Amino acid sequence: MPDFAEPIANLVEQLKRLPGIGQKTAQRLAFHLLRADREESESLAAAILAAKNNLRECSICNNVTDTDPCLYCRNPARAHKSICVVEEPHNIVPIEKTRGYNGLYHVLGGTLSPLNGIGPDQLKIKSLLERLKKGTVEEIIIATNPTTEGEATAVYLSKLIKPLGVRVTRIGMGIPVGSDLEYADEVTMSKAMEGRREL
Amino acid sequence: MPDFAEPIANLVEQLKRLPGIGQKTAQRLAFHLLRADREESESLAAAILAAKNNLRECSICNNVTDTDPCLYCRNPARAHKSICVVEEPHNIVPIEKTRGYNGLYHVLGGTLSPLNGIGPDQLKIKSLLERLKKGTVEEIIIATNPTTEGEATAVYLSKLIKPLGVRVTRIGMGIPVGSDLEYADEVTMSKAMEGRREL
Repeated sequence: MPDFAEPIANLVEQLKRLPGIGQKTAQRLAFHLLRADREESESLAAAILAAKNNLRECSICNNVTDTDPCLYCRNPARAHKSICVVEEPHNIVPIEKTRGYNGLYHVLGGTLSPLNGIGPDQLKIKSLLERLKKGTVEEIIIATNPTTEGEATAVYLSKLIKPLGVRVTRIGMGIPVGSDLEYADEVTMSKAMEGRREL
Repeated sequence: MPDFAEPIANLVEQLKRLPGIGQKTAQRLAFHLLRADREESESLAAAILAAKNNLRECSICNNVTDTDPCLYCRNPARAHKSICVVEEPHNIVPIEKTRGYNGLYHVLGGTLSPLNGIGPDQLKIKSLLERLKKGTVEEIIIATNPTTEGEATAVYLSKLIKPLGVRVTRIGMGIPVGSDLEYADEVTMSKAMEGRREL
């Protein structure tokens, strides 16, 4: 005999497909939705469908957007001379949070991963090179993740772009601010040493 | 200028209303839903609406259910001589997980909390007393949470029900299995001492 009425069991199953949501969290969320106002549940369901229906890729930078071009690409106040290359649309969020970057973005849609069959043609690299042809871009900041795949992708892009006379930089790697040397792994620690600056 | 396109911002806002979901988790879930198949998003939205539309309270025990009576109340294989009293429908889950209880349930819909204006009339106490009138119930197991309010509710119910000649018991409190005495607070520890058994 099932533990839950079927509509609850199904809601729990659907919630469990979300990343980082296990059985217990899914149950907690499901029972919350059952207790909550009808308005709250309906707003959530509508927001999910609206996000799916009203969003597409920016034709310039591949960011997810409800307008084309996206809010960064169409903003004349942003510095069109730098492009920050990220793996996925959500990687833009932490960079925008710094309020320190005012350039444009380019979303690759992943990283090079030959074992998973992802080569340069599966990423939005061709359209990145197209954007450089106009000659307005002076710097490409590669902000792929500091993983093996992210690093390999950064090196690949740098070899491709440098010959075009565009400056290519990589985000700094090192000890996170507020952390302690004690907790740093060896690779991070050696990146921190390599990336040392004059005081 | 907003950080997100409006449909994403709205989805993030709606997700943040869920318990235990903060800004970062909401963003992670939202971007997951954007990347996921249309089928996954639509199934989730549909499950939320279906749960809200197809569920109601069991007219006997107040559990959430898609059929009335609920799957426990209508099951002749369950022992109709014991009723386990819980605060909320989701409290039934951990008890069913034990596979050791085969009786019925009664959902109070909360606990006595005079400061928040919740007295006996705001809880499903009257209908619990109605269920006892038939004379088939031999034991009431009070499984409200071991909080101040849960305890007060347990004491209140016990005073109300004992005079009816029905056995009233309270779930055991003590050190969680697999835990360590070191981590037990004083109140739990003294409950564990009180609840000691012969070996």
